Amino acid sequence: MHKQISSLQNPLVKQLLQLQEKSRERKKSGLFVIEGQREIELALKGGYFLKTVLFCSDIIAEESLFRLKEQANSEADFIEISSEVYQKVAYRTTTEGFLAIAETKELSLQELELPSETALILIAEAPEKPGNIGAILRTADAAHVDAVIIANPKTDFYNPNIIRSSVGCLFTNQLATGTTTEIIAFLKERNINIYSAILQESVPYHTLDYTTATAIIVGTESTGLSQEWRDAATQNIHIPMQGEIDSMNVSVAAGILIFEAKRQRDFN
Amino acid sequence: MHKQISSLQNPLVKQLLQLQEKSRERKKSGLFVIEGQREIELALKGGYFLKTVLFCSDIIAEESLFRLKEQANSEADFIEISSEVYQKVAYRTTTEGFLAIAETKELSLQELELPSETALILIAEAPEKPGNIGAILRTADAAHVDAVIIANPKTDFYNPNIIRSSVGCLFTNQLATGTTTEIIAFLKERNINIYSAILQESVPYHTLDYTTATAIIVGTESTGLSQEWRDAATQNIHIPMQGEIDSMNVSVAAGILIFEAKRQRDFN
Repeated sequence: MHKQISSLQNPLVKQLLQLQEKSRERKKSGLFVIEGQREIELALKGGYFLKTVLFCSDIIAEESLFRLKEQANSEADFIEISSEVYQKVAYRTTTEGFLAIAETKELSLQELELPSETALILIAEAPEKPGNIGAILRTADAAHVDAVIIANPKTDFYNPNIIRSSVGCLFTNQLATGTTTEIIAFLKERNINIYSAILQESVPYHTLDYTTATAIIVGTESTGLSQEWRDAATQNIHIPMQGEIDSMNVSVAAGILIFEAKRQRDFN
Repeated sequence: MHKQISSLQNPLVKQLLQLQEKSRERKKSGLFVIEGQREIELALKGGYFLKTVLFCSDIIAEESLFRLKEQANSEADFIEISSEVYQKVAYRTTTEGFLAIAETKELSLQELELPSETALILIAEAPEKPGNIGAILRTADAAHVDAVIIANPKTDFYNPNIIRSSVGCLFTNQLATGTTTEIIAFLKERNINIYSAILQESVPYHTLDYTTATAIIVGTESTGLSQEWRDAATQNIHIPMQGEIDSMNVSVAAGILIFEAKRQRDFN
């Protein structure tokens, strides 16, 4: 019925491992790996194109396979892999049973579709930890923001740790990346207000109005936002902190700011 | 000058490893391990009592040692350890150079000191991931809440992963643990409003007033809050979510709720 792979030496297995480990490999080939049935389904829903679906019959239910075949693009190649191969390539080695190789998307600023008057955009500059990017993507999904943009990315969005920690929210958000310079130009062209989360020359975040087109920008925990964002800001903002240490997690800070905007918009 | 330890077989080294690894060992002995000069200083400021300070001369600056001695309780025993020993016991193996064994605190509800009319308390029930507890403690520090309470804890507060991910905020917050039943009784006795973050029979969080004595309770990402918290609530609350997946990180959700309370209180 299906093609089968049971050798760890199989070229496809080697390619899969390379795609998981190396950002360069993902960029060169335009491919990346998705693990988990739910994540694969969300990717399909988000318009991603599957090249190959690998499944481990020892783990999956027959009906899950049937269901995934119905949803997948017709060109997707379904291949059965042995338990041994699955153990080697999967992170969640005893559950799930599905992996896919999919085509990456461009994620360019120009392809973002935004409402002109009321856009709400969350931007993170050079975030370091995949776990934080994942948490930001989850918040962005819940807040239903119009786009998430990563400025000067340190890794690509298709890093398996980001996909995993986003629990699939990588596929439910409109995404883009670009340099800080490009993103600022993009926002200014569209008259989107820039609120840079930074202490210097800033006002408390809750004193501003976020009901018009708004971009909220957060920096890294270690170095904060770059000077460019400070200079370009419509207004710099900060979350008033009154503790001993005042070191909030970046994804928590992003959540507080985005949901203040949502609150002001009455969650519309 | 100082006692020295260079053998991995030294009983103190073994004790240190046990205290890092085993919650049971911490409970039995009433001791725990703090890594890092800043963290040790914050613990001292928070009223913790050091039993032993271990330092690795190859890493630390002489003046840091001097400074720490000035701040520490006089009974603290300062012991020099070799690089080999330090590598074995430290997480951040090439930086810091300080470890301490300190006495745990009771962390009982009865010892919390709370303002009667305006208390703001953050409660997490049975949180699973040390990283999330750490992020919650950072948020609590920044918001300067009156207390953080963990209900039905799955691990003790003195787990090294919690201390580390809290970047020392474990020591800057008033903390307590207890069973859910005990905590509910404690809050009711003091007429503190209970706002349980749970979807059922709830109102959007931003429609309530949090300017009087308030406890905000969050549950785990996997199972949410227990029925007890639902039944005891002054009002159940939820964060309106409008995405595809709606799975916010628990520390992000806690941050959004606590800072809405802070906003309403005008950050006083």
